[in-house]
Amino acid sequence: MTAKSRIGVTGLAVMGANLARNIARRGVPVAVHNRTTERTREFVREYGDEGAFTAAETVEEFVRALERPRRIIIMVKAGKPVDGVIDELAPLLDEGDILIDGGNSHFTDTRRRVERCARDGLRFIGTGVSGGEEGALLGPSIMPGGDRGAYAEVEDVLTSIAAQVDGTPCCTYVGPDGAGHYVKMVHNGIEYADIQLIAEAYDLLRHVAGLDVPAIARTFEEWNSGDLESFLVEITAKVLAKTDERTGGPLVDVVLDEAEQKGTGRWTAQDALELGVPLTGITEAVYARTLSALREERGRASSVLRGPVPEKGGVRADLVDDIRQALYASKVVAYAQGFAQMHAASRAYDWDLDLGAMATIWRGGCIIRARFLDRIRDAYAEHPDLENLLTVPYFTDAVAGAQDAWRRVVMTATERGVPIPAFSSSLSYYDGYRRERGPAALIQVLRDFFGAHTYRRVDAEGAFHTRWAQDGTEVRTDT
Amino acid sequence: MTAKSRIGVTGLAVMGANLARNIARRGVPVAVHNRTTERTREFVREYGDEGAFTAAETVEEFVRALERPRRIIIMVKAGKPVDGVIDELAPLLDEGDILIDGGNSHFTDTRRRVERCARDGLRFIGTGVSGGEEGALLGPSIMPGGDRGAYAEVEDVLTSIAAQVDGTPCCTYVGPDGAGHYVKMVHNGIEYADIQLIAEAYDLLRHVAGLDVPAIARTFEEWNSGDLESFLVEITAKVLAKTDERTGGPLVDVVLDEAEQKGTGRWTAQDALELGVPLTGITEAVYARTLSALREERGRASSVLRGPVPEKGGVRADLVDDIRQALYASKVVAYAQGFAQMHAASRAYDWDLDLGAMATIWRGGCIIRARFLDRIRDAYAEHPDLENLLTVPYFTDAVAGAQDAWRRVVMTATERGVPIPAFSSSLSYYDGYRRERGPAALIQVLRDFFGAHTYRRVDAEGAFHTRWAQDGTEVRTDT
Repeated sequence: MTAKSRIGVTGLAVMGANLARNIARRGVPVAVHNRTTERTREFVREYGDEGAFTAAETVEEFVRALERPRRIIIMVKAGKPVDGVIDELAPLLDEGDILIDGGNSHFTDTRRRVERCARDGLRFIGTGVSGGEEGALLGPSIMPGGDRGAYAEVEDVLTSIAAQVDGTPCCTYVGPDGAGHYVKMVHNGIEYADIQLIAEAYDLLRHVAGLDVPAIARTFEEWNSGDLESFLVEITAKVLAKTDERTGGPLVDVVLDEAEQKGTGRWTAQDALELGVPLTGITEAVYARTLSALREERGRASSVLRGPVPEKGGVRADLVDDIRQALYASKVVAYAQGFAQMHAASRAYDWDLDLGAMATIWRGGCIIRARFLDRIRDAYAEHPDLENLLTVPYFTDAVAGAQDAWRRVVMTATERGVPIPAFSSSLSYYDGYRRERGPAALIQVLRDFFGAHTYRRVDAEGAFHTRWAQDGTEVRTDT
Repeated sequence: MTAKSRIGVTGLAVMGANLARNIARRGVPVAVHNRTTERTREFVREYGDEGAFTAAETVEEFVRALERPRRIIIMVKAGKPVDGVIDELAPLLDEGDILIDGGNSHFTDTRRRVERCARDGLRFIGTGVSGGEEGALLGPSIMPGGDRGAYAEVEDVLTSIAAQVDGTPCCTYVGPDGAGHYVKMVHNGIEYADIQLIAEAYDLLRHVAGLDVPAIARTFEEWNSGDLESFLVEITAKVLAKTDERTGGPLVDVVLDEAEQKGTGRWTAQDALELGVPLTGITEAVYARTLSALREERGRASSVLRGPVPEKGGVRADLVDDIRQALYASKVVAYAQGFAQMHAASRAYDWDLDLGAMATIWRGGCIIRARFLDRIRDAYAEHPDLENLLTVPYFTDAVAGAQDAWRRVVMTATERGVPIPAFSSSLSYYDGYRRERGPAALIQVLRDFFGAHTYRRVDAEGAFHTRWAQDGTEVRTDT
């Protein structure tokens, strides 16, 4: 009989396969399994010499191959398939065995599964894994939530396969039940905003500043050596520099302008609405993708809807640098909103999230890794209960310094008819957030007029209603 | 034994009481019931002489008081209370009896209740009722959905109590299961956008154009005689003209700037995200309310976050009229988005909604009633399958004519640091929607780079992936 494996991976599509390889390469014996046996065989043929793999053709074999408590990473499509795997495994497992869902599950599903497994005596971890294929293989950012005791039993493996930044692994216990998947969801939401802002910057560089694609590629490359240094800016430069084999022109020019999405951005916005957190940047990014997907409809609309007459020239010399500053300021806002959402979720769902730790584990491995996250980590180190990143001196000053440029960019785009939903909504959020008294009093009085919803006063306690349809007098309604 | 009542109302808070009075005033005998008997007695004391009421102190009495099939309007708080009433009534009812939920229930709850009642042999209608207290009494807009046969049995009562415009009642069968509550939800979503746009216009008139509150009241009054003619603009003028009894200043100035919400706006945005409909105006309006609710946090932020140095003067003479045009154009976009959402929902949920009929029943009684809706009705009369209102010549021309002013307003607000989330997001939507080719190709190529999500090409069928980490060649992935 062969030695038992320390951990198992079921689901050998590219993410699961690469995670299994990553673990084996650290010298940890791994059992692998896939619903379709042929995929398991193929995996062993291709990667079998990379480490100590035990290939299991059946679920029973897979379970038998694992040491106790069994540690099983589930890497299947989010949704029903995860429940299917749990249903199949649960009867074969023993008390205290550990299931780890590494897909992009909705956090409410994870909450449910933690409870369900606990009833069966099993321990469940829902973990975010970010970094795409390459991250899974070479070191992802890992965001595990759920059973804390179970985490202690897999911590060594997870931290060893995670990306390392300055000797710190990009993996830490996030919090109970759905906390890990929630944080991964918000990570992806921020990724949506980041990408949308880059797309808006690219659009302006091209259609307002008049740069050609190779010049824009060089611009992003240059930006990547400053405050904007990040994986996404780095790969934007690479992607824009890519020449299409067929046409000889830039690849980006032969790609359909329809952005797809898998759901995590949408979920982030939906939960921000639920929690009452203004999350304008990420939400506008999600909507921008849905608008892009209406490609044929846009084609028809473009022939009838009118815009500004295109101007040639008249572009300021400093426009390119203005766009860089607008991108940076909008990015600060998007992160501030995403972190504010995690702050609100932590309270609402009772998770006690350490937001500085989240910034720390996002510094490497994941899609939004950026120099910038060091600053966010520092901010929470100094103010663990921080309401909003914008109020930390470093970010306050960064946005204050960038705001004139940011406003100029929004104005220029508005004048030229170039859509900038994320740039402008981030700026409106900034202007709204720094406003001690806004126009919402009018909203509240209107609500009182047509719906008797009452209002509060600045100079007295209590709820008030004006008897609009009667004598117009004010009455206190809460006594 | 007294004659049986034609219809019953349970739940005698202000909306239920006013609906019951409205029905009785049309000469229809009404049975009334409330969980707390004292409320029923009070109702009879106060309004008993307005019509043929039968006051029921118990649910059994209430049910016995009704002719068959029984028709019962439920006017209780949305959520569990509705299920509670159904649970209580169902055992006392007979096959074919009709329950009508007139609250703001979530459409998925209504779908569930239609099914649940059908299992018990009961017929269920979920209906939107808009118009607030006054509308409920004098003529609301009524949006019933659910069992079509049941609707035929209450149509005479509902159409007689509804608002009437040019002899047409503001009530029509909307569609199966949750359709009525869905349409009411989107109605409320549009109301959020309408109100937010008015608040932004007010803010600019006051803090950029420099008008005082009485002058702004007069401005809205004047606007109400043009394209903007609507209930909300009319009452904005009234509300702004209102003097506070205590201070002698404008009422709006003593009201806390925290706007509350009850959920329908949030639900509208959440379902737009679910359906993939870009609903930026309504969503920004919901977020603006959530931002207003962070009043104390804003207070703290206002002392550290910097903005443009306030400028005195330099305001264009035509700014006030520019703001009017910006309000109108943004409003067209908000309605276009809301109607596009209903169009998408109709397909997704299989409702076959008649959107022209929705515009028709919103012309009177409800909060968003406006001259404007005649134009929307006309648009759907001519193009029943219309994708987007913006592409109808009347609206195309209206926005084309207003857009220079709209852009100037967004630019001025941006320069002055006044938040305009709904004005600017509507404009970005307009500019994005009329764009045949936007920057989403870059988004899709980035997704392919970090997640192997593939892309489509403009010049070939199929899905493609560039082997970024390998030799950089392109492979087709769908064959």
